[in-house]
Amino acid sequence: MLNIEIKGLGAALPEKFVEFQGRRRYRMSDGETHLGLLCKSAKKVLKQSNMKIDDIDVIIGACAVGVQPIPCTAALVHEEIAKGKNIPAFDVNSTCTSFIAALDIASYYIHCGRYRNVLIVSGDAPSLALNENERHSFELFGDGAVSAVITPSKTSGILYCTQLTYSSGAHLTELEGGGTLLPGLQYCEDNKHRFQFHMEGKKALTTTLSCVNELFDDIKKHSKINPDDIHLIIPHQASEALSLVMRRLNIPTNKFIDLTKEYGNMVSASIPFTLDYAIRQNKVKHGDLIMLLGTAAGLTLHAMIMRY
Amino acid sequence: MLNIEIKGLGAALPEKFVEFQGRRRYRMSDGETHLGLLCKSAKKVLKQSNMKIDDIDVIIGACAVGVQPIPCTAALVHEEIAKGKNIPAFDVNSTCTSFIAALDIASYYIHCGRYRNVLIVSGDAPSLALNENERHSFELFGDGAVSAVITPSKTSGILYCTQLTYSSGAHLTELEGGGTLLPGLQYCEDNKHRFQFHMEGKKALTTTLSCVNELFDDIKKHSKINPDDIHLIIPHQASEALSLVMRRLNIPTNKFIDLTKEYGNMVSASIPFTLDYAIRQNKVKHGDLIMLLGTAAGLTLHAMIMRY
Repeated sequence: MLNIEIKGLGAALPEKFVEFQGRRRYRMSDGETHLGLLCKSAKKVLKQSNMKIDDIDVIIGACAVGVQPIPCTAALVHEEIAKGKNIPAFDVNSTCTSFIAALDIASYYIHCGRYRNVLIVSGDAPSLALNENERHSFELFGDGAVSAVITPSKTSGILYCTQLTYSSGAHLTELEGGGTLLPGLQYCEDNKHRFQFHMEGKKALTTTLSCVNELFDDIKKHSKINPDDIHLIIPHQASEALSLVMRRLNIPTNKFIDLTKEYGNMVSASIPFTLDYAIRQNKVKHGDLIMLLGTAAGLTLHAMIMRY
Repeated sequence: MLNIEIKGLGAALPEKFVEFQGRRRYRMSDGETHLGLLCKSAKKVLKQSNMKIDDIDVIIGACAVGVQPIPCTAALVHEEIAKGKNIPAFDVNSTCTSFIAALDIASYYIHCGRYRNVLIVSGDAPSLALNENERHSFELFGDGAVSAVITPSKTSGILYCTQLTYSSGAHLTELEGGGTLLPGLQYCEDNKHRFQFHMEGKKALTTTLSCVNELFDDIKKHSKINPDDIHLIIPHQASEALSLVMRRLNIPTNKFIDLTKEYGNMVSASIPFTLDYAIRQNKVKHGDLIMLLGTAAGLTLHAMIMRY
């Protein structure tokens, strides 16, 4: 076990939400920004963890889409919460499961003594790039940010983490424009749709269903953990097909958290938000064995088993 | 020491270059792409390392600017070189020093047995976003990609790595548009300059000079390595002021590689490109103590001491 603990989680949602047939999605209003949400969540988790920024040894940004192409998002968060300090800052990105990827890296750094206290800042603002004509994604996504402080521990830790990427699904969930394939400078009315988020929801679901058994076989084979011993699964809130995927995996409804109706898919914020929710609802207590589980654009499947 | 070795390096430059008063910068022509350069370098390093893609346990993208905002660049490289495999793929980003950040993470993963063979894919295409009116940056940057295969080792390894981020310099080197601050959808002629790369070269240099002693103090204090024992420094080719920075640090010209005239600043590709060059020129041999050293937008200073 890599002995670390999640000392605290701090969530920040936009002030307003919209509703689609009773399904609530938080969306930023004028004056709110992605960076603002990230910094609000970072300040919140520091306060909740009784820590000051000087206690933090590294800031890891873990968003799907950055605030600016240059510099990295962690440096821009640093400017708001750590200006004048020389705390290192860098980003990690596996799209929707970036929080798992960052926590995975943090656990090795802490375990080996490289860093002691790690601040992970996750979150996205998908509302800025949704396509109103693609109703299934337009009505699914919400904005949000969640930060976490990770510290050494004697009793908690990561027991197993695995990621599998199936690039046959690389374009099932994508935002093409904004990087080097199609720089912002080339934006025009004709290619507007390429600067908007696009998701082939059904194909992404069937690809996930065809690969997820391989992920669970990997866990069974390598983790030496009996799936029945897992107290609760904290899944990425990819879509309202979450319950269908879980049913296919024979996971009963009381073994996972489904917030898709109340919050939708908040990209990189969904997994830490769901974990924060579960802790606040007393569904997860220290010592419980839990699994963070997610799909991400890529197409990536990611699972992490931890003693909370 | 974290026992790893750089099994191979593979560089890919655009076919053509431009020259400014004898200073050569490689720039992509029609038909060449950032992703194409990344994949060319990845295929080259696999061949040079006598490895097949099936030998690789994880692909880490280490670019400053991604190919697309979603999915991560490593997944798009995966699609070209590993389609049909389930090799995990994610990105790490500390802008110009992303290669050091990725190698740092890879060294912990390999040391702890999580992954055995790591493929790092670095590179950028700054020519796509340069501003012709900002001559000092327009004449400085070049495109390029370098990939590396990292494997376990009995004799080579990482002795020390440190990163310091000074966000007082967060906006001295930046590309504002393309992320959530200013999405591509908001591009217009009036804000064109915000979708172009901007560098306050002199301020970035003075900030670097005011912080770099702190980096070297950190190394002296924590690494237990005598700087005189370092055979060669492999610096990021930030600008032609490189020799000035080195002079201020009392580092003689035979102790570092300066390729700024011949190649300019190739962003994340510069450090691994310079290392590859030094190895090919027999300036670095197995067993030598070397230092990878770089500045990055953020503003980040990054140093890694390794037994090559």
